Amino acid sequence: MHSVDRMSALITRLFPICRSITGNGVRETLAILRETIPLQIDEVPTGTKVFDWTIPREWNIRDAYIKDTTGKRLIDFQKLNLHVVSYSTPLRCRMPFVELKEHLFTSAGNPDWVPYRTSYYNESWGFCLSENQLAQFDPNAEYDVCIDSSLKDGSLTYGECFLPGETPEEVLISSHVCHPSLANDNLSGIAVAVALAEALATAPRRYSYRFVFAPGSIGAISWLSRNEERLQMVRHGFVLTCVGDSAGITYKRSRHFKAEIDRAFLHILRHSGEPHQVVNFSPYGYDERQYCSPGIDLPVGCMMRSVHGTFPEYHTSADNLDFVRPESLVNSLEQCLQVINLLELNRTYLNNSPKGEPQLGKRGLYQGLGDGSTRRQHELALLWVLNLSDGSHSLLDIAEEAGLPFATIKDAADALARTDLLSLVQS
Amino acid sequence: MHSVDRMSALITRLFPICRSITGNGVRETLAILRETIPLQIDEVPTGTKVFDWTIPREWNIRDAYIKDTTGKRLIDFQKLNLHVVSYSTPLRCRMPFVELKEHLFTSAGNPDWVPYRTSYYNESWGFCLSENQLAQFDPNAEYDVCIDSSLKDGSLTYGECFLPGETPEEVLISSHVCHPSLANDNLSGIAVAVALAEALATAPRRYSYRFVFAPGSIGAISWLSRNEERLQMVRHGFVLTCVGDSAGITYKRSRHFKAEIDRAFLHILRHSGEPHQVVNFSPYGYDERQYCSPGIDLPVGCMMRSVHGTFPEYHTSADNLDFVRPESLVNSLEQCLQVINLLELNRTYLNNSPKGEPQLGKRGLYQGLGDGSTRRQHELALLWVLNLSDGSHSLLDIAEEAGLPFATIKDAADALARTDLLSLVQS
Amino acid sequence: MHSVDRMSALITRLFPICRSITGNGVRETLAILRETIPLQIDEVPTGTKVFDWTIPREWNIRDAYIKDTTGKRLIDFQKLNLHVVSYSTPLRCRMPFVELKEHLFTSAGNPDWVPYRTSYYNESWGFCLSENQLAQFDPNAEYDVCIDSSLKDGSLTYGECFLPGETPEEVLISSHVCHPSLANDNLSGIAVAVALAEALATAPRRYSYRFVFAPGSIGAISWLSRNEERLQMVRHGFVLTCVGDSAGITYKRSRHFKAEIDRAFLHILRHSGEPHQVVNFSPYGYDERQYCSPGIDLPVGCMMRSVHGTFPEYHTSADNLDFVRPESLVNSLEQCLQVINLLELNRTYLNNSPKGEPQLGKRGLYQGLGDGSTRRQHELALLWVLNLSDGSHSLLDIAEEAGLPFATIKDAADALARTDLLSLVQS
Repeated sequence: MHSVDRMSALITRLFPICRSITGNGVRETLAILRETIPLQIDEVPTGTKVFDWTIPREWNIRDAYIKDTTGKRLIDFQKLNLHVVSYSTPLRCRMPFVELKEHLFTSAGNPDWVPYRTSYYNESWGFCLSENQLAQFDPNAEYDVCIDSSLKDGSLTYGECFLPGETPEEVLISSHVCHPSLANDNLSGIAVAVALAEALATAPRRYSYRFVFAPGSIGAISWLSRNEERLQMVRHGFVLTCVGDSAGITYKRSRHFKAEIDRAFLHILRHSGEPHQVVNFSPYGYDERQYCSPGIDLPVGCMMRSVHGTFPEYHTSADNLDFVRPESLVNSLEQCLQVINLLELNRTYLNNSPKGEPQLGKRGLYQGLGDGSTRRQHELALLWVLNLSDGSHSLLDIAEEAGLPFATIKDAADALARTDLLSLVQS
Repeated sequence: MHSVDRMSALITRLFPICRSITGNGVRETLAILRETIPLQIDEVPTGTKVFDWTIPREWNIRDAYIKDTTGKRLIDFQKLNLHVVSYSTPLRCRMPFVELKEHLFTSAGNPDWVPYRTSYYNESWGFCLSENQLAQFDPNAEYDVCIDSSLKDGSLTYGECFLPGETPEEVLISSHVCHPSLANDNLSGIAVAVALAEALATAPRRYSYRFVFAPGSIGAISWLSRNEERLQMVRHGFVLTCVGDSAGITYKRSRHFKAEIDRAFLHILRHSGEPHQVVNFSPYGYDERQYCSPGIDLPVGCMMRSVHGTFPEYHTSADNLDFVRPESLVNSLEQCLQVINLLELNRTYLNNSPKGEPQLGKRGLYQGLGDGSTRRQHELALLWVLNLSDGSHSLLDIAEEAGLPFATIKDAADALARTDLLSLVQS
Repeated sequence: MHSVDRMSALITRLFPICRSITGNGVRETLAILRETIPLQIDEVPTGTKVFDWTIPREWNIRDAYIKDTTGKRLIDFQKLNLHVVSYSTPLRCRMPFVELKEHLFTSAGNPDWVPYRTSYYNESWGFCLSENQLAQFDPNAEYDVCIDSSLKDGSLTYGECFLPGETPEEVLISSHVCHPSLANDNLSGIAVAVALAEALATAPRRYSYRFVFAPGSIGAISWLSRNEERLQMVRHGFVLTCVGDSAGITYKRSRHFKAEIDRAFLHILRHSGEPHQVVNFSPYGYDERQYCSPGIDLPVGCMMRSVHGTFPEYHTSADNLDFVRPESLVNSLEQCLQVINLLELNRTYLNNSPKGEPQLGKRGLYQGLGDGSTRRQHELALLWVLNLSDGSHSLLDIAEEAGLPFATIKDAADALARTDLLSLVQS
């Protein structure tokens, strides 16, 4: 099966599961991922201190509804798990609408959409429903309300896929796994991360790769707090989120601003010929907030398409399977692979004949360069690599200075390295 | 009395006094300022060497006029002190118009305006008059000319108002006091400086404040030469001049270009929502020329509204009481107070929980944040302060990085500092 | 004879000579230059290793033609030396057109123009001709082909003109001398370089000047390899090429990007009021490629008018005597002289009275400053020089900071240096 079909199938399969920051939804999700990629799953018990936070009780839910007095389910968790505010406390009672309505939430301006709400750290309960559904309630009636959930000591679950490379230096790729039936916000990131892991698993790797699938915020914080000593090995990283919608790519820089990962994304996006934007780091968004907190400060950016909070479907039932497009998933995967390829190949070389230009013709370096503008570009790339390979410029530095695509510079470096003219600087 | 009325009243009272770089006009002026702010007045005797300069003889003037032979005063110093070129030598004689006219100066293109002229370091005499007045002279007549002035050994006078703060580090605010009946150029700066001193006198002060009221150039040079050992305590400073007209504010950077005073003015002006401009330092203008000379090189900028030499009323009788607007004086005062407030509060803090985001909810930090965009901005400010409080970013650094107003960042820092999350870095 | 006439006459005289990277054409050319400027001529024997290159056999040519079987010369080297591919091996034979045509080269789209081709390091032969000439060949006929050339051990020739100055620090000016009958590409650079050398020979010189006239690439490399120990004395330099056509000046920065030579050209061009462009260094072009190779890395830029490869006449017979304009040659010379003048005069001074502004009036520095805007500019220049002469700003730094022409700043510095206020910093 082609990766695009596998990504779409994975999203479709994961969509109905009711995930939250703890509970069986995350475990089911990770079990499915483990079918295709190696995954170590960790459980962090309720009450464990993770930096400034404490793992809460585990939340699970079996059923929830609002019935009228005839027994008809007006709101039914079985039909849509967004109907229950995540982490709602258990409840079973009859109450008048005037009391119930304090616990009902709708999405203003979109009468058919059901919003997504959570109340992780504040004990309460609630239902999310569409404005049209709300209109069907009788203000003078009573309703039977049931939330068959549990909040008990248990654990928070995260998964980690590690692919060792030639060096212990790591590339960190992270996706949150705590959203219920939302397709772009959550599942698209998981699907692209899994496809990346599959692709990298069978490829030669200079770097080691670590994929983290953890609940947002407290999950990433848990992983960080349990892996502090490993963080020094992280050279590059990025968070994947909202990568399935039809917008162009937005890359959000790491807190370092000009880390190699930032420059790699900029270079690939600039030469992609596709609309895109690059935004500066801000301490708001997804788990880059944690990776870029001042005491951690990893070179970790964030790749998105539409930006969280800025598209109407965000955190509503309209972020459904239709909202995610196969071609966007493929494009997101492709850009990530190009960035990783760049990181893998971005080495520094030394011109062994740095006084005057070396004679390229006698080494056959002008042969097979093709014709016209391609030939000219290849020839220029040879000259740029020789001119800037003074030990202080990486191939990405040279590509940026030359205004040429990284691949063209890399080809030139390879051709030169096959002669006596260029040597790899061991780093 | 409200500060705007006090500023206007002060300007009206000071306007008729004939000031120059030495003489009783400056003494009278400083005596009036001493009625409302503490002021130490210094006299620098004629002949004293101040850096490259020497204090000249003291100039005073009682009367001056040009009469026709019927005894009618055509030009009368008693009506407008601008009529006499400042530092004119004493004179009493009858002379033909052809001789007199070599000593008459008008303002080209403004037939009703009388220009302002000086001849401090070149012994001579002259009268300034309007073109219309000049037209009334008879080219063939003789005139009685009198300048009842004196040039004698005496002293140059300047005043200093010092408001001690918690630290001996100083903010220097300087205005020139050597212009006669000119309202914007000179008196507006004095009035805003006095209002600032009044406001600061009763406020808590981290910094100490030093206000210098000195004649232009040689007065500031005198102050500098007599206070060299104190200059190392000056952390920030600005010159106040032409701050009463109706134009938007122009801030001229210090020679340091990005001193904290420069960044403070830029920040306040940018967030003021008012038209303004920021110009680079140049060694031409007011006493910032002296404070920014290479051997002194203090971080001292200059706040103006219209820029000297660029508005038609400049150095003419049209720079009169009508030219200065109360609302401009108030706005100038207000911007200065905001800049000073920023300097006072611009401290560096340390995030005590720098690994991952700390949990704000459990500390009640999300409460009372208001609604909608205000709430969002406050929440962002909390996150920015935490993210950048790594010991190397001041609150102003954070405000600039976040693109948020300083006050919002300061509020967030205060809220965080009330918990265990943020500590002030002692500097 | 005025320099413009001498430049034009030199180009006209050199035009017919058949130059290549070795051979008598270069020798003849250098002999002519030696008639007006001191020139040391060096010969580098065939087989000598120069960095990565080896001096090839020497190429000379006496005659070449293609005759039809009636004996009529269809293509005649005597009429235009571009007709023979440079470094063509000797040949004398009759061959059918189908075989001959593999060795014929035309210029696409310009039916009357003959292209310029070389084959230095690849033994082969060929003829260049216009498309119209090619159309006259009979596809079924045979032709008598003769190239009366020789490829024998000999040497590569270059010339060097050294003008000693007060200091052994050098300005390097380089032109290639390897192109046959091409006027702009090659001869214009030689002519301007010779005129510069003539002008400098009789002028006082702080710097020493070294003019290199060498065949492109291998000639510059030869000179570099034989003068490595001298290179440390080169403070500034530029390559002159294509400086006779009607386009505005293009200056290509050195690899240092902001070397003093780069800043000098930028300043002079910006204040010239003429259209011009400044482009970044790239490792493609003329001998700046060699001077800016990473193991040499001299601060050497390149001055051109039209850029090689971007104008249709480039490397064709249309780059002839008509293509070079006297007024462009004069303008190129003038800009070079202004740049050199700036380098000569760009010293660093120290304000001896750095505390406050010194009193300029008492030293007569305000006298003779002219009127209006000129006076204002001169006064500003005095103040800028005083303000920035703190030991870390050269006159060029000051001119750039002030936004004033270098000459105005230099005049001010001279006036101040005639008083006690300014001293030259010995460097």
